[in-house]
Amino acid sequence: MQIEGFMKYEQILKTIYKEVTSLENTGEVASYIPELAKVSKDHFGMYLNRIDGNNYAEGDTDTKFSIQSISKVFSLTVAFANQGDALWNRVDVEPSGNPFNYLSLLEREKGIPRNPLINSGAIVVADCLVSTLKNPKKDFLQFVRDLADDQTINFNEEVAASEKATGFKNYAIANLLKSYNNLANPVEEVLDFYFHQCSIEMNCKQLSNAFVPYANKGKSLLNDACVSAKQAKRINAIMLTCGFYDEAGEFAFEVGLPGKSGVGGGIVALLPNEFVITTWSPALNEKGNSYYGMQALEKFTTQTNSSIF
Amino acid sequence: MQIEGFMKYEQILKTIYKEVTSLENTGEVASYIPELAKVSKDHFGMYLNRIDGNNYAEGDTDTKFSIQSISKVFSLTVAFANQGDALWNRVDVEPSGNPFNYLSLLEREKGIPRNPLINSGAIVVADCLVSTLKNPKKDFLQFVRDLADDQTINFNEEVAASEKATGFKNYAIANLLKSYNNLANPVEEVLDFYFHQCSIEMNCKQLSNAFVPYANKGKSLLNDACVSAKQAKRINAIMLTCGFYDEAGEFAFEVGLPGKSGVGGGIVALLPNEFVITTWSPALNEKGNSYYGMQALEKFTTQTNSSIF
Amino acid sequence: MQIEGFMKYEQILKTIYKEVTSLENTGEVASYIPELAKVSKDHFGMYLNRIDGNNYAEGDTDTKFSIQSISKVFSLTVAFANQGDALWNRVDVEPSGNPFNYLSLLEREKGIPRNPLINSGAIVVADCLVSTLKNPKKDFLQFVRDLADDQTINFNEEVAASEKATGFKNYAIANLLKSYNNLANPVEEVLDFYFHQCSIEMNCKQLSNAFVPYANKGKSLLNDACVSAKQAKRINAIMLTCGFYDEAGEFAFEVGLPGKSGVGGGIVALLPNEFVITTWSPALNEKGNSYYGMQALEKFTTQTNSSIF
Amino acid sequence: MQIEGFMKYEQILKTIYKEVTSLENTGEVASYIPELAKVSKDHFGMYLNRIDGNNYAEGDTDTKFSIQSISKVFSLTVAFANQGDALWNRVDVEPSGNPFNYLSLLEREKGIPRNPLINSGAIVVADCLVSTLKNPKKDFLQFVRDLADDQTINFNEEVAASEKATGFKNYAIANLLKSYNNLANPVEEVLDFYFHQCSIEMNCKQLSNAFVPYANKGKSLLNDACVSAKQAKRINAIMLTCGFYDEAGEFAFEVGLPGKSGVGGGIVALLPNEFVITTWSPALNEKGNSYYGMQALEKFTTQTNSSIF
Repeated sequence: MQIEGFMKYEQILKTIYKEVTSLENTGEVASYIPELAKVSKDHFGMYLNRIDGNNYAEGDTDTKFSIQSISKVFSLTVAFANQGDALWNRVDVEPSGNPFNYLSLLEREKGIPRNPLINSGAIVVADCLVSTLKNPKKDFLQFVRDLADDQTINFNEEVAASEKATGFKNYAIANLLKSYNNLANPVEEVLDFYFHQCSIEMNCKQLSNAFVPYANKGKSLLNDACVSAKQAKRINAIMLTCGFYDEAGEFAFEVGLPGKSGVGGGIVALLPNEFVITTWSPALNEKGNSYYGMQALEKFTTQTNSSIF
Repeated sequence: MQIEGFMKYEQILKTIYKEVTSLENTGEVASYIPELAKVSKDHFGMYLNRIDGNNYAEGDTDTKFSIQSISKVFSLTVAFANQGDALWNRVDVEPSGNPFNYLSLLEREKGIPRNPLINSGAIVVADCLVSTLKNPKKDFLQFVRDLADDQTINFNEEVAASEKATGFKNYAIANLLKSYNNLANPVEEVLDFYFHQCSIEMNCKQLSNAFVPYANKGKSLLNDACVSAKQAKRINAIMLTCGFYDEAGEFAFEVGLPGKSGVGGGIVALLPNEFVITTWSPALNEKGNSYYGMQALEKFTTQTNSSIF
Repeated sequence: MQIEGFMKYEQILKTIYKEVTSLENTGEVASYIPELAKVSKDHFGMYLNRIDGNNYAEGDTDTKFSIQSISKVFSLTVAFANQGDALWNRVDVEPSGNPFNYLSLLEREKGIPRNPLINSGAIVVADCLVSTLKNPKKDFLQFVRDLADDQTINFNEEVAASEKATGFKNYAIANLLKSYNNLANPVEEVLDFYFHQCSIEMNCKQLSNAFVPYANKGKSLLNDACVSAKQAKRINAIMLTCGFYDEAGEFAFEVGLPGKSGVGGGIVALLPNEFVITTWSPALNEKGNSYYGMQALEKFTTQTNSSIF
Repeated sequence: MQIEGFMKYEQILKTIYKEVTSLENTGEVASYIPELAKVSKDHFGMYLNRIDGNNYAEGDTDTKFSIQSISKVFSLTVAFANQGDALWNRVDVEPSGNPFNYLSLLEREKGIPRNPLINSGAIVVADCLVSTLKNPKKDFLQFVRDLADDQTINFNEEVAASEKATGFKNYAIANLLKSYNNLANPVEEVLDFYFHQCSIEMNCKQLSNAFVPYANKGKSLLNDACVSAKQAKRINAIMLTCGFYDEAGEFAFEVGLPGKSGVGGGIVALLPNEFVITTWSPALNEKGNSYYGMQALEKFTTQTNSSIF
């Protein structure tokens, strides 16, 4: 990645911020639970954490938001570190394609989810953590706090409760998994964990810090080896091929970085050995990814010439 | 239907009974819940209830068994009588084809089940009854008792409890329906009703009596008009096209009568204005229909020349 | 079927004709080939052929139209008569459900069409006839002429040529069947036969006459036994469950008779041992069945109380 | 990519060659056309072409084989260079998942193939070339010859003829595309081109040379700019997410490089700005990718630490 001397990252972020916020924000804030719908669509922040130690913030990088599906990367990390390749007996690593036929796919593949970053796969991963962690919710939260080196990170109990009250599709998925014997623990217990992991709130800075291991051969900001270098690479491969629902191909194509998005409007992406970048803007495009975030990341990789391809 | 004078129905049933029981019973008793698995596969009974008032029994017609999916015809009858054609806004009347992709179909059709005789459709019908009956389980049981003119008919609470403990696929379906707003009541409440309706125990005689309205322009054994003649015809049409899961076409083709089977081994079939016939034998063929029962009904309609076609 | 003495069939047909033609005809004439699109949507005819020998005509019963898919019943009849139950090794007898995923279904079921009345099944049947008839097209046409007792019936070569030039979906189906080894003859040869069979032109009277065997235990108007009584019953069962694409359940439900529709606007339906009735009106409802025809048949079976259920 | 001084690529390839060939070759040579089935499964070659100009050969790198699906990358390159992003109106860039339901997917997505590297997508791309190239087959062959800087490269007319005689599934796909108006030229013409492009024969060295542009910002071995740097990146993204049928995720996961496999047993993979590597061994694993080739590439990227992740 070659950045000419006179072009500072700070300047690049500023320019992108201006360009993106001058676009009409045609996205819509997720509204399926009241807690998400309350967030103003005006927020927009970008935080760049370079592996060399320099960090760059632009816009709204201190406001916490619901990380939602981004949490799937963290739970996958714990399960993969604990179980190694045995995990792949219960969940596959292939792109899923069509989000609209979630349960169809699960049925056709007899209860083996296509990958750990779609809901069905993440629910299987959650089941693994409920089985192996002593105090599942507490231990998982601690893992995320340590990753981000920030002990203030927390669940949002209201969001978790709301998801529980309205998450019928996730109940359908968990029960279908259970009918295929791919869930060891009771549905209620697994989903309680799952809804909590999704409800974690972090800001752009915390997320960028927490994703350092994937860009740094498995080593966290605090230099803990939370996964092996090989496992970090594998998680990156999964993010690239499966991190953006039905837009995975488009993202690989337009941005060219491994990453993960969440319905709360966050996106984290990374270039191995170089950087982690997090964007947050709550209004989503029709595929469920942050509208401003996708624009910003496309511009960033183009301007810094930093695709993996 | 022309039966020559010298051929008595009694004789026909005796002959069929002998022929069928001389076949090796290659079917398997349903084993997904312990209560069903306990039943011996040796049972075999046939009960013919002619609209002219004559009845004929052969074999094991007094032993009660779990009516399971046959109950869907009763619940459909109550819902259709109560709601009329408005019911079809929430459930369609088309054959479903492949049972293996239940949830796929439901997903593709956005939560509108293909017909009221597959599980998803019957769960929507159960939801209707939970909404409209004052004491849903009690009132429904009373309806069935009155149909059969037999107040000894009852739920089997153990079967209902077993279904509840292991019915993950039905929980998946109900939650998926709920996610599409096609369930007005809580999942637990609807499934409690549904598992109870399926657990009703009846013998061949009681079932034949209870199905009289479908062969008799809507009038029950006690001459109550439980549905209109037109509605009875419509339920018959649904039974013919949808009553035997993926074997609906085969049954129409081989037997040529409207009917409904259950995983407990019962089958009820009928010729409008002529008769109702019930068979029971718990061992099922690979499509989930009673092996002896299918054989017996094919022989009966051939020998009495009594197809609707 | 009880018709009170004073109600003449003639009068019933007249009344229905008036009622139906007073409805706004919201259907659309099929336009995928120019020859079909040319037909005026104003045509409407009904022809009732009672097995007792009395016939009744109302409206446009002498104009010939493209019988299209109705021909599938004739080809099935020849193949079934020739091959008997061996035919079912190559085509199933289950309702197909969704017409929109024709090829999906064929793929999932590894090249065995769901039934002989959808295109894929009819193409397999056509392949059987190409294999077994000496002069396939000529012999088949002669069979239809004899059924209807009318030697003026003919192919419409322009319609056949048009179908050939634009029938890409049928080419796709035939090639897929071929890839699954379920087509013995070359694709071009089978489709040439198939497009010709669909292009046959008949009027309401000829069709009603040609369908007599299905209502008369296999015996044609000329008293030829073209199929056995048992085979006639089976074909009726297939018509009832599979004769109306995705509207099979609806038709069984609303009309309650075995029948077959074609995209040219014809519908033939029958009550065993009683009658055959043919309607023709070229404008189709959204499911591809004649709009006026469906209305007329629903009224006819209601007014004459002549459902099989 | 850090290779310690004492570890020579030559040595690495030798070691891998020995390790891989000591494995029992459990794969099977493709046999759907006689020409492919004739090839001995004993062949195994690897050719590494580093962008710095150094090349390394090990094993059978001079024998030509049928490149088959690898040709889809070349045709995509020409179409993308000619049409730019307008190409994506006719073919998507999302991973396809399940190869077993090719036509289902195409039907569900109304004739827009999931990506240009599955058969349906490549047939659409072939249609583009038939429309835009003056002498489609000749011009395309010349393009490939120039890419590889080798004028001896040719079609294998027998392979092309065999594919034409037996390629019913491709005919099904092309006709289905045509039925959705996503094919401008006649089916026969497009497939003639397609079968020819797949029949091109190249050896490991020629393929490695021809793939240089994707590793070298669009510039070929002869320094021609055959696509822009941006387009090269995009093609790499497509290869990574879609290059290995249902094993795309697995390959990204195990190997971590963009690449493309063919049923003739060839695989080409590349690390941008670093190298192209081609392997050839005709015996395929159950997913249709070369068994030895997959093993070799996994070992190579592990030993040279050269994943993109």
